[in-house]
Amino acid sequence: MAFEDERTRPVRDLLSALPDIEARSVIDLGCGPGNSTEVLAARFPNAAVRGIDSSSDMIATARRRLPQVQFALGGIEEWTDAGPFDVILANAVLHWVPDHATLLPGLVAKLASGGGLAVQMPDNLDSPAHRLMREIAADGPWAPTLAAASTARTPIGDANWYYELLRPLCTKVDVWRTTYYHPLSGGAAAIVEWFKGSGLTPFLEPLELRVRAAYLERYTAAVARAYPALPDGSVLLPFPRLFMVAIRQAGE
Amino acid sequence: MAFEDERTRPVRDLLSALPDIEARSVIDLGCGPGNSTEVLAARFPNAAVRGIDSSSDMIATARRRLPQVQFALGGIEEWTDAGPFDVILANAVLHWVPDHATLLPGLVAKLASGGGLAVQMPDNLDSPAHRLMREIAADGPWAPTLAAASTARTPIGDANWYYELLRPLCTKVDVWRTTYYHPLSGGAAAIVEWFKGSGLTPFLEPLELRVRAAYLERYTAAVARAYPALPDGSVLLPFPRLFMVAIRQAGE
Repeated sequence: MAFEDERTRPVRDLLSALPDIEARSVIDLGCGPGNSTEVLAARFPNAAVRGIDSSSDMIATARRRLPQVQFALGGIEEWTDAGPFDVILANAVLHWVPDHATLLPGLVAKLASGGGLAVQMPDNLDSPAHRLMREIAADGPWAPTLAAASTARTPIGDANWYYELLRPLCTKVDVWRTTYYHPLSGGAAAIVEWFKGSGLTPFLEPLELRVRAAYLERYTAAVARAYPALPDGSVLLPFPRLFMVAIRQAGE
Repeated sequence: MAFEDERTRPVRDLLSALPDIEARSVIDLGCGPGNSTEVLAARFPNAAVRGIDSSSDMIATARRRLPQVQFALGGIEEWTDAGPFDVILANAVLHWVPDHATLLPGLVAKLASGGGLAVQMPDNLDSPAHRLMREIAADGPWAPTLAAASTARTPIGDANWYYELLRPLCTKVDVWRTTYYHPLSGGAAAIVEWFKGSGLTPFLEPLELRVRAAYLERYTAAVARAYPALPDGSVLLPFPRLFMVAIRQAGE
Protein backbone atom coordinates (compact mmCIF):
# COMPACT_ATOMS: atom_id res chain seq x y z
CA MET A 1 0.00 0.00 0.00
CA ALA A 2 1.77 3.10 -1.25
CA PHE A 3 1.38 6.38 0.65
CA GLU A 4 0.08 4.52 3.70
CA ASP A 5 1.20 7.23 6.13
CA GLU A 6 -0.55 9.93 4.15
CA ARG A 7 -3.70 7.84 3.83
CA THR A 8 -3.81 6.82 7.49
CA ARG A 9 -3.47 10.35 8.88
CA PRO A 10 -7.07 11.33 8.06
CA VAL A 11 -8.30 8.33 10.09
CA ARG A 12 -6.29 9.45 13.08
CA ASP A 13 -7.58 13.00 12.73
CA LEU A 14 -11.15 11.72 12.34
CA LEU A 15 -11.08 9.40 15.36
CA SER A 16 -9.39 11.97 17.60
CA ALA A 17 -12.56 14.07 17.24
CA LEU A 18 -14.73 11.29 18.68
CA PRO A 19 -15.59 11.73 22.37
CA ASP A 20 -14.36 9.05 24.80
CA ILE A 21 -17.23 6.64 24.26
CA GLU A 22 -17.31 3.45 26.39
CA ALA A 23 -17.40 1.38 23.24
CA ARG A 24 -18.04 -2.35 23.30
CA SER A 25 -18.86 -2.88 19.63
CA VAL A 26 -17.25 -0.95 16.78
CA ILE A 27 -17.11 -1.55 13.03
CA ASP A 28 -15.00 -0.29 10.15
CA LEU A 29 -17.05 -0.06 6.93
CA GLY A 30 -14.95 -0.35 3.79
CA CYS A 31 -11.97 -1.30 5.91
CA GLY A 32 -9.60 -1.81 2.97
CA PRO A 33 -6.28 -3.41 4.00
CA GLY A 34 -6.96 -2.76 7.69
CA ASN A 35 -4.94 0.39 8.28
CA SER A 36 -8.04 2.30 9.42
CA THR A 37 -9.19 -0.70 11.48
CA GLU A 38 -5.86 -0.69 13.27
CA VAL A 39 -6.34 2.95 14.33
CA LEU A 40 -9.94 2.19 15.37
CA ALA A 41 -8.86 -0.79 17.50
CA ALA A 42 -6.15 1.28 19.18
CA ARG A 43 -8.62 4.07 19.96
CA PHE A 44 -11.12 1.63 21.53
CA PRO A 45 -8.96 -1.15 23.03
CA ASN A 46 -11.85 -2.65 25.03
CA ALA A 47 -14.23 -2.99 22.10
CA ALA A 48 -14.99 -5.94 19.85
CA VAL A 49 -13.83 -4.73 16.45
CA ARG A 50 -15.25 -5.78 13.10
CA GLY A 51 -14.53 -4.77 9.53
CA ILE A 52 -16.23 -5.28 6.17
CA ASP A 53 -15.04 -4.60 2.65
CA SER A 54 -16.31 -5.51 -0.80
CA SER A 55 -12.87 -6.69 -1.99
CA SER A 56 -11.70 -10.17 -1.05
CA ASP A 57 -8.06 -9.13 -1.60
CA MET A 58 -8.48 -6.32 0.92
CA ILE A 59 -10.15 -8.63 3.43
CA ALA A 60 -7.31 -11.15 3.08
CA THR A 61 -4.71 -8.42 3.67
CA ALA A 62 -6.65 -7.02 6.64
CA ARG A 63 -6.90 -10.49 8.25
CA ARG A 64 -3.15 -10.98 8.00
CA ARG A 65 -2.60 -7.57 9.56
CA LEU A 66 -5.09 -7.88 12.44
CA PRO A 67 -5.78 -11.55 13.24
CA GLN A 68 -7.85 -10.60 16.33
CA VAL A 69 -10.40 -8.64 14.30
CA GLN A 70 -13.45 -10.26 12.69
CA PHE A 71 -13.39 -9.28 9.00
CA ALA A 72 -16.14 -10.14 6.52
CA LEU A 73 -16.63 -9.71 2.79
CA GLY A 74 -19.51 -7.40 1.94
CA GLY A 75 -20.67 -4.10 0.50
CA ILE A 76 -22.13 -1.25 2.49
CA GLU A 77 -25.35 -1.12 0.43
CA GLU A 78 -26.04 -4.79 1.21
CA TRP A 79 -25.02 -4.51 4.86
CA THR A 80 -28.06 -5.49 6.93
CA ASP A 81 -26.63 -5.87 10.45
CA ALA A 82 -28.91 -3.70 12.59
CA GLY A 83 -26.40 -3.30 15.38
CA PRO A 84 -26.46 -1.45 17.65
CA PHE A 85 -22.88 -0.26 17.32
CA ASP A 86 -21.11 2.15 19.62
CA VAL A 87 -18.92 3.43 16.81
CA ILE A 88 -19.36 3.14 13.05
CA LEU A 89 -16.31 4.24 11.07
CA ALA A 90 -16.54 4.87 7.33
CA ASN A 91 -13.16 6.14 6.18
CA ALA A 92 -12.65 7.04 2.51
CA VAL A 93 -15.46 4.79 1.30
CA LEU A 94 -18.86 6.52 1.23
CA HIS A 95 -17.92 8.55 -1.85
CA TRP A 96 -18.34 5.24 -3.72
CA VAL A 97 -21.84 4.65 -2.27
CA PRO A 98 -24.88 6.52 -3.66
CA ASP A 99 -27.82 8.29 -2.03
CA HIS A 100 -26.32 9.83 1.08
CA ALA A 101 -29.68 11.38 2.04
CA THR A 102 -30.88 7.83 2.85
CA LEU A 103 -27.55 6.16 3.62
CA LEU A 104 -26.32 8.39 6.45
CA PRO A 105 -29.54 8.48 8.52
CA GLY A 106 -29.60 4.69 8.08
CA LEU A 107 -26.13 4.42 9.59
CA VAL A 108 -27.11 6.68 12.52
CA ALA A 109 -30.07 4.33 13.11
CA LYS A 110 -27.61 1.46 13.66
CA LEU A 111 -25.87 3.35 16.48
CA ALA A 112 -26.53 2.75 20.15
CA SER A 113 -27.77 5.75 22.15
CA GLY A 114 -24.82 8.11 22.49
CA GLY A 115 -22.88 6.16 19.85
CA GLY A 116 -20.82 7.89 17.16
CA LEU A 117 -20.69 7.82 13.38
CA ALA A 118 -17.31 8.92 11.99
CA VAL A 119 -17.04 9.62 8.27
CA GLN A 120 -14.23 10.88 6.07
CA MET A 121 -14.48 11.33 2.30
CA PRO A 122 -12.18 12.80 -0.34
CA ASP A 123 -13.73 16.07 -1.51
CA ASN A 124 -11.54 16.47 -4.55
CA LEU A 125 -13.72 15.98 -7.65
CA ASP A 126 -13.10 19.65 -8.54
CA SER A 127 -9.31 19.36 -8.18
CA PRO A 128 -7.19 19.56 -11.36
CA ALA A 129 -6.16 15.90 -10.98
CA HIS A 130 -9.79 14.76 -11.18
CA ARG A 131 -10.92 17.29 -13.77
CA LEU A 132 -8.12 16.05 -16.04
CA MET A 133 -9.11 12.37 -15.57
CA ARG A 134 -12.59 13.21 -16.89
CA GLU A 135 -11.49 15.58 -19.66
CA ILE A 136 -8.99 13.14 -21.10
CA ALA A 137 -11.48 10.26 -20.76
CA ALA A 138 -13.98 12.19 -22.89
CA ASP A 139 -11.46 13.12 -25.58
CA GLY A 140 -9.70 10.13 -27.08
CA PRO A 141 -10.16 6.71 -28.71
CA TRP A 142 -11.07 5.35 -25.23
CA ALA A 143 -14.08 7.71 -24.86
CA PRO A 144 -16.82 5.11 -25.58
CA THR A 145 -15.27 2.62 -23.14
CA LEU A 146 -14.95 5.26 -20.41
CA ALA A 147 -18.39 6.82 -20.87
CA ALA A 148 -19.50 5.72 -17.40
CA ALA A 149 -16.21 6.16 -15.52
CA SER A 150 -16.95 9.73 -14.45
CA THR A 151 -20.13 8.66 -12.68
CA ALA A 152 -18.53 5.90 -10.58
CA ARG A 153 -18.15 8.26 -7.65
CA THR A 154 -20.98 9.86 -5.71
CA PRO A 155 -20.75 13.65 -5.85
CA ILE A 156 -20.73 14.50 -2.15
CA GLY A 157 -22.61 17.34 -0.45
CA ASP A 158 -21.04 20.28 1.33
CA ALA A 159 -20.57 20.70 5.08
CA ASN A 160 -23.88 22.53 5.53
CA TRP A 161 -25.79 19.80 3.71
CA TYR A 162 -24.48 17.01 5.93
CA TYR A 163 -24.93 19.12 9.06
CA GLU A 164 -28.58 19.81 8.26
CA LEU A 165 -29.14 16.15 7.33
CA LEU A 166 -27.74 14.71 10.56
CA ARG A 167 -28.41 17.40 13.18
CA PRO A 168 -32.08 16.46 13.79
CA LEU A 169 -31.02 12.86 14.56
CA CYS A 170 -28.07 13.68 16.78
CA THR A 171 -27.04 15.53 19.92
CA LYS A 172 -23.92 16.80 18.23
CA VAL A 173 -22.66 17.01 14.67
CA ASP A 174 -19.09 18.10 14.08
CA VAL A 175 -18.13 18.82 10.46
CA TRP A 176 -14.81 20.04 9.11
CA ARG A 177 -12.91 20.04 5.85
CA THR A 178 -9.14 19.70 5.67
CA THR A 179 -6.83 20.11 2.71
CA TYR A 180 -3.60 18.23 3.31
CA TYR A 181 -0.62 19.31 1.24
CA HIS A 182 1.35 16.13 0.55
CA PRO A 183 4.96 16.62 -0.57
CA LEU A 184 5.62 13.89 -3.14
CA SER A 185 9.09 13.25 -4.48
CA GLY A 186 8.96 12.25 -8.10
CA GLY A 187 6.73 15.02 -9.41
CA ALA A 188 3.78 14.28 -11.71
CA ALA A 189 4.56 10.55 -11.89
CA ALA A 190 4.09 10.35 -8.12
CA ILE A 191 0.72 12.10 -8.33
CA VAL A 192 -0.41 9.60 -10.97
CA GLU A 193 0.85 6.76 -8.79
CA TRP A 194 -1.18 8.16 -5.87
CA PHE A 195 -4.44 8.19 -7.86
CA LYS A 196 -3.87 4.77 -9.42
CA GLY A 197 -4.84 3.37 -6.04
CA SER A 198 -8.08 5.36 -5.82
CA GLY A 199 -9.69 7.89 -8.16
CA LEU A 200 -8.11 6.54 -11.36
CA THR A 201 -9.40 2.98 -10.91
CA PRO A 202 -12.72 3.45 -12.80
CA PHE A 203 -10.75 5.05 -15.66
CA LEU A 204 -8.06 2.37 -15.90
CA GLU A 205 -9.86 -0.91 -15.21
CA PRO A 206 -12.09 -0.86 -18.34
CA LEU A 207 -9.10 -0.30 -20.69
CA GLU A 208 -6.91 -2.97 -22.19
CA LEU A 209 -3.23 -2.60 -21.38
CA ARG A 210 -2.05 -0.73 -24.51
CA VAL A 211 -4.91 1.75 -24.41
CA ARG A 212 -4.43 2.18 -20.68
CA ALA A 213 -0.79 3.09 -21.23
CA ALA A 214 -1.77 5.71 -23.81
CA TYR A 215 -4.40 7.20 -21.50
CA LEU A 216 -1.87 7.33 -18.64
CA GLU A 217 0.73 8.98 -20.84
CA ARG A 218 -1.62 11.82 -21.75
CA TYR A 219 -2.85 12.09 -18.16
CA THR A 220 0.67 12.25 -16.72
CA ALA A 221 1.67 15.02 -19.13
CA ALA A 222 -1.43 17.05 -18.20
CA VAL A 223 -0.81 16.53 -14.46
CA ALA A 224 2.77 17.76 -14.88
CA ARG A 225 1.43 21.03 -16.32
CA ALA A 226 -1.22 21.43 -13.60
CA TYR A 227 1.09 20.67 -10.65
CA PRO A 228 4.43 22.36 -11.36
CA ALA A 229 7.46 20.84 -9.65
CA LEU A 230 9.16 22.66 -6.77
CA PRO A 231 12.85 23.62 -7.10
CA ASP A 232 13.91 20.29 -5.57
CA GLY A 233 11.88 18.29 -8.13
CA SER A 234 9.15 17.28 -5.68
CA VAL A 235 5.55 18.42 -5.92
CA LEU A 236 2.93 19.44 -3.37
CA LEU A 237 -0.37 17.60 -3.84
CA PRO A 238 -3.30 19.44 -2.20
CA PHE A 239 -5.85 16.84 -1.07
CA PRO A 240 -9.17 18.13 0.36
CA ARG A 241 -11.22 15.82 2.58
CA LEU A 242 -14.58 16.27 4.31
CA PHE A 243 -14.98 14.92 7.88
CA MET A 244 -17.95 14.43 10.13
CA VAL A 245 -18.56 12.99 13.59
CA ALA A 246 -22.22 12.60 14.55
CA ILE A 247 -23.35 11.48 18.03
CA ARG A 248 -26.71 9.77 18.18
CA GLN A 249 -29.35 11.10 20.52
CA ALA A 250 -29.51 9.18 23.78
CA GLY A 251 -32.68 7.65 25.22
CA GLU A 252 -34.39 6.47 22.06
CA MET B 1 -13.21 33.77 27.14
CA ALA B 2 -16.18 33.00 24.91
CA PHE B 3 -15.95 30.10 22.45
CA GLU B 4 -12.93 28.70 24.32
CA ASP B 5 -13.61 25.12 23.20
CA GLU B 6 -13.83 26.17 19.56
CA ARG B 7 -10.68 28.29 19.87
CA THR B 8 -8.66 25.63 21.70
CA ARG B 9 -9.37 22.83 19.25
CA PRO B 10 -6.98 24.17 16.56
CA VAL B 11 -4.15 24.12 19.15
CA ARG B 12 -4.84 20.48 19.93
CA ASP B 13 -4.97 19.63 16.23
CA LEU B 14 -1.75 21.56 15.64
CA LEU B 15 0.23 19.99 18.48
CA SER B 16 -0.96 16.48 17.67
CA ALA B 17 0.92 16.80 14.37
CA LEU B 18 4.23 17.42 16.17
CA PRO B 19 6.46 14.35 16.44
CA ASP B 20 7.30 13.08 19.95
CA ILE B 21 10.20 15.43 20.58
CA GLU B 22 12.16 15.03 23.84
CA ALA B 23 11.43 18.64 24.69
CA ARG B 24 13.11 20.38 27.61
CA SER B 25 12.33 23.97 26.68
CA VAL B 26 9.14 25.09 24.93
CA ILE B 27 7.53 28.50 24.46
CA ASP B 28 4.08 29.78 23.51
CA LEU B 29 4.32 33.02 21.52
CA GLY B 30 1.23 35.22 21.82
CA CYS B 31 -0.07 32.93 24.55
CA GLY B 32 -3.23 34.95 25.21
CA PRO B 33 -5.10 33.78 28.32
CA GLY B 34 -3.06 30.55 28.51
CA ASN B 35 -5.45 28.08 26.89
CA SER B 36 -2.89 27.22 24.20
CA THR B 37 -0.11 27.11 26.83
CA GLU B 38 -2.12 24.58 28.80
CA VAL B 39 -2.32 22.25 25.79
CA LEU B 40 1.40 22.77 25.13
CA ALA B 41 2.31 21.94 28.74
CA ALA B 42 0.15 18.79 28.65
CA ARG B 43 1.76 17.67 25.38
CA PHE B 44 5.31 18.13 26.79
CA PRO B 45 4.97 17.41 30.52
CA ASN B 46 8.73 17.21 31.09
CA ALA B 47 9.54 20.56 29.50
CA ALA B 48 10.06 23.97 31.06
CA VAL B 49 7.21 26.01 29.58
CA ARG B 50 7.23 29.73 28.91
CA GLY B 51 4.73 32.11 27.37
CA ILE B 52 4.82 35.68 26.11
CA ASP B 53 2.03 38.03 25.08
CA SER B 54 1.85 41.75 24.31
CA SER B 55 -1.24 42.25 26.52
CA SER B 56 -0.77 42.62 30.27
CA ASP B 57 -4.40 41.55 30.85
CA MET B 58 -3.76 38.32 28.96
CA ILE B 59 -0.54 37.67 30.90
CA ALA B 60 -2.36 38.21 34.21
CA THR B 61 -5.10 35.75 33.20
CA ALA B 62 -2.56 33.21 31.97
CA ARG B 63 -0.60 33.41 35.27
CA ARG B 64 -3.73 32.72 37.30
CA ARG B 65 -4.49 29.75 35.06
CA LEU B 66 -1.02 28.18 35.03
CA PRO B 67 1.01 29.28 38.06
CA GLN B 68 3.83 26.88 37.22
CA VAL B 69 4.52 28.50 33.83
CA GLN B 70 6.84 31.48 33.40
CA PHE B 71 4.87 34.19 31.57
CA ALA B 72 6.34 37.48 30.39
CA LEU B 73 4.96 40.60 28.76
CA GLY B 74 6.33 41.16 25.27
CA GLY B 75 5.71 41.33 21.54
CA ILE B 76 6.98 38.84 19.02
CA GLU B 77 8.76 41.47 16.92
CA GLU B 78 10.78 42.61 19.94
CA TRP B 79 11.46 39.09 21.18
CA THR B 80 15.24 38.64 21.23
CA ASP B 81 15.71 35.40 23.19
CA ALA B 82 17.94 33.31 20.94
CA GLY B 83 16.92 30.00 22.51
CA PRO B 84 17.46 27.29 21.50
CA PHE B 85 13.93 25.99 22.02
CA ASP B 86 12.74 22.46 21.38
CA VAL B 87 9.26 23.65 20.48
CA ILE B 88 8.05 27.11 19.47
CA LEU B 89 4.26 27.41 19.35
CA ALA B 90 2.61 30.39 17.66
CA ASN B 91 -1.14 29.84 17.76
CA ALA B 92 -3.47 32.41 16.19
CA VAL B 93 -0.98 35.24 16.52
CA LEU B 94 1.37 35.54 13.52
CA HIS B 95 -1.39 37.02 11.34
CA TRP B 96 -0.88 40.17 13.47
CA VAL B 97 2.89 40.23 12.80
CA PRO B 98 4.29 41.50 9.49
CA ASP B 99 6.98 40.20 7.13
CA HIS B 100 6.65 36.45 7.35
CA ALA B 101 9.44 35.95 4.82
CA THR B 102 11.87 37.16 7.52
CA LEU B 103 9.89 36.26 10.64
CA LEU B 104 9.46 32.52 10.08
CA PRO B 105 13.05 31.65 9.15
CA GLY B 106 14.03 33.71 12.23
CA LEU B 107 11.85 31.49 14.41
CA VAL B 108 13.31 28.32 12.89
CA ALA B 109 16.79 29.71 13.73
CA LYS B 110 15.79 29.76 17.43
CA LEU B 111 15.01 26.03 17.38
CA ALA B 112 17.38 23.36 18.62
CA SER B 113 18.42 20.71 16.07
CA GLY B 114 15.37 18.54 15.47
CA GLY B 115 13.11 21.05 17.25
CA GLY B 116 9.69 21.98 15.94
CA LEU B 117 7.94 25.21 15.00
CA ALA B 118 4.14 24.90 15.18
CA VAL B 119 2.05 27.68 13.66
CA GLN B 120 -1.69 28.17 13.22
CA MET B 121 -3.27 31.26 11.69
CA PRO B 122 -6.83 32.20 10.71
CA ASP B 123 -7.01 32.22 6.92
CA ASN B 124 -10.32 34.00 6.70
CA LEU B 125 -9.71 37.48 5.26
CA ASP B 126 -11.72 36.44 2.18
CA SER B 127 -14.67 35.16 4.21
CA PRO B 128 -17.93 37.17 4.09
CA ALA B 129 -17.55 38.13 7.77
CA HIS B 130 -14.23 39.85 7.07
CA ARG B 131 -15.16 41.29 3.71
CA LEU B 132 -18.18 42.94 5.36
CA MET B 133 -16.04 44.43 8.17
CA ARG B 134 -13.94 46.19 5.54
CA GLU B 135 -16.79 47.21 3.24
CA ILE B 136 -18.84 48.77 6.04
CA ALA B 137 -15.72 50.44 7.47
CA ALA B 138 -15.13 52.17 4.13
CA ASP B 139 -18.72 53.30 3.71
CA GLY B 140 -20.01 55.37 6.64
CA PRO B 141 -19.30 58.35 8.89
CA TRP B 142 -16.60 56.26 10.58
CA ALA B 143 -14.61 55.80 7.36
CA PRO B 144 -11.81 58.34 8.13
CA THR B 145 -11.30 56.90 11.63
CA LEU B 146 -11.14 53.33 10.28
CA ALA B 147 -8.90 54.08 7.30
CA ALA B 148 -6.09 51.93 8.71
CA ALA B 149 -8.17 49.16 10.32
CA SER B 150 -8.14 46.93 7.25
CA THR B 151 -4.35 46.84 7.25
CA ALA B 152 -3.96 45.75 10.89
CA ARG B 153 -3.68 42.14 9.86
CA THR B 154 -0.91 40.64 7.79
CA PRO B 155 -2.29 39.03 4.63
CA ILE B 156 -0.91 35.53 4.95
CA GLY B 157 0.58 33.39 2.18
CA ASP B 158 -0.83 30.15 0.88
CA ALA B 159 0.32 26.65 1.78
CA ASN B 160 2.78 26.45 -1.12
CA TRP B 161 4.39 29.74 -0.16
CA TYR B 162 5.10 28.66 3.44
CA TYR B 163 6.24 25.23 2.30
CA GLU B 164 8.78 26.69 -0.14
CA LEU B 165 9.92 29.24 2.46
CA LEU B 166 10.60 26.70 5.22
CA ARG B 167 11.54 23.51 3.36
CA PRO B 168 15.19 24.47 2.70
CA LEU B 169 15.71 25.07 6.45
CA CYS B 170 13.93 21.94 7.69
CA THR B 171 13.94 18.17 7.47
CA LYS B 172 10.15 18.12 7.28
CA VAL B 173 7.46 20.69 6.67
CA ASP B 174 3.84 19.65 7.16
CA VAL B 175 1.22 22.15 5.95
CA TRP B 176 -2.55 21.78 6.01
CA ARG B 177 -5.61 24.01 5.95
CA THR B 178 -8.77 23.18 7.87
CA THR B 179 -12.16 24.84 7.71
CA TYR B 180 -14.07 24.18 10.93
CA TYR B 181 -17.83 24.60 10.75
CA HIS B 182 -18.87 25.98 14.14
CA PRO B 183 -22.57 25.66 15.00
CA LEU B 184 -23.46 28.84 16.90
CA SER B 185 -26.79 29.24 18.62
CA GLY B 186 -28.00 32.80 18.39
CA GLY B 187 -27.50 33.38 14.67
CA ALA B 188 -25.80 36.53 13.36
CA ALA B 189 -25.43 38.05 16.83
CA ALA B 190 -23.31 35.06 17.85
CA ILE B 191 -21.07 35.49 14.81
CA VAL B 192 -20.54 39.15 15.70
CA GLU B 193 -19.80 38.16 19.29
CA TRP B 194 -17.21 35.67 18.01
CA PHE B 195 -15.35 38.30 15.97
CA LYS B 196 -15.50 40.94 18.71
CA GLY B 197 -12.77 38.93 20.41
CA SER B 198 -10.52 38.85 17.35
CA GLY B 199 -10.96 40.22 13.83
CA LEU B 200 -13.29 43.09 14.76
CA THR B 201 -10.93 44.61 17.34
CA PRO B 202 -9.13 47.00 14.95
CA PHE B 203 -12.52 48.16 13.66
CA LEU B 204 -14.12 48.75 17.08
CA GLU B 205 -11.30 50.10 19.26
CA PRO B 206 -10.82 53.39 17.34
CA LEU B 207 -14.55 54.26 17.53
CA GLU B 208 -16.30 56.07 20.38
CA LEU B 209 -19.14 54.12 21.92
CA ARG B 210 -22.09 55.60 19.99
CA VAL B 211 -20.37 55.30 16.63
CA ARG B 212 -19.24 51.81 17.52
CA ALA B 213 -22.83 50.78 18.21
CA ALA B 214 -23.95 52.16 14.83
CA TYR B 215 -21.13 50.31 13.03
CA LEU B 216 -22.01 47.09 14.84
CA GLU B 217 -25.70 47.47 13.98
CA ARG B 218 -24.96 47.70 10.26
CA TYR B 219 -22.40 44.92 10.49
CA THR B 220 -24.79 42.58 12.31
CA ALA B 221 -27.53 43.13 9.72
CA ALA B 222 -25.09 42.37 6.88
CA VAL B 223 -23.79 39.24 8.64
CA ALA B 224 -27.37 38.00 9.07
CA ARG B 225 -27.85 38.20 5.29
CA ALA B 226 -24.51 36.51 4.52
CA TYR B 227 -24.95 33.63 7.03
CA PRO B 228 -28.58 32.52 6.86
CA ALA B 229 -29.95 30.83 9.97
CA LEU B 230 -30.64 27.10 9.99
CA PRO B 231 -34.19 25.86 10.70
CA ASP B 232 -33.42 25.69 14.44
CA GLY B 233 -32.26 29.34 14.54
CA SER B 234 -28.58 28.50 14.87
CA VAL B 235 -25.96 29.26 12.25
CA LEU B 236 -22.91 27.43 10.92
CA LEU B 237 -19.79 29.60 10.89
CA PRO B 238 -17.13 28.27 8.49
CA PHE B 239 -13.70 29.18 9.87
CA PRO B 240 -10.65 28.39 7.71
CA ARG B 241 -7.24 28.11 9.38
CA LEU B 242 -3.76 27.43 7.99
CA PHE B 243 -1.45 25.11 9.95
CA MET B 244 2.23 24.28 9.67
CA VAL B 245 4.68 22.14 11.60
CA ALA B 246 8.32 22.57 10.59
CA ILE B 247 11.14 20.43 12.01
CA ARG B 248 14.57 22.04 12.03
CA GLN B 249 17.43 20.23 10.39
CA ALA B 250 19.55 18.31 12.90
CA GLY B 251 23.30 18.63 13.23
CA GLU B 252 23.83 22.30 12.44
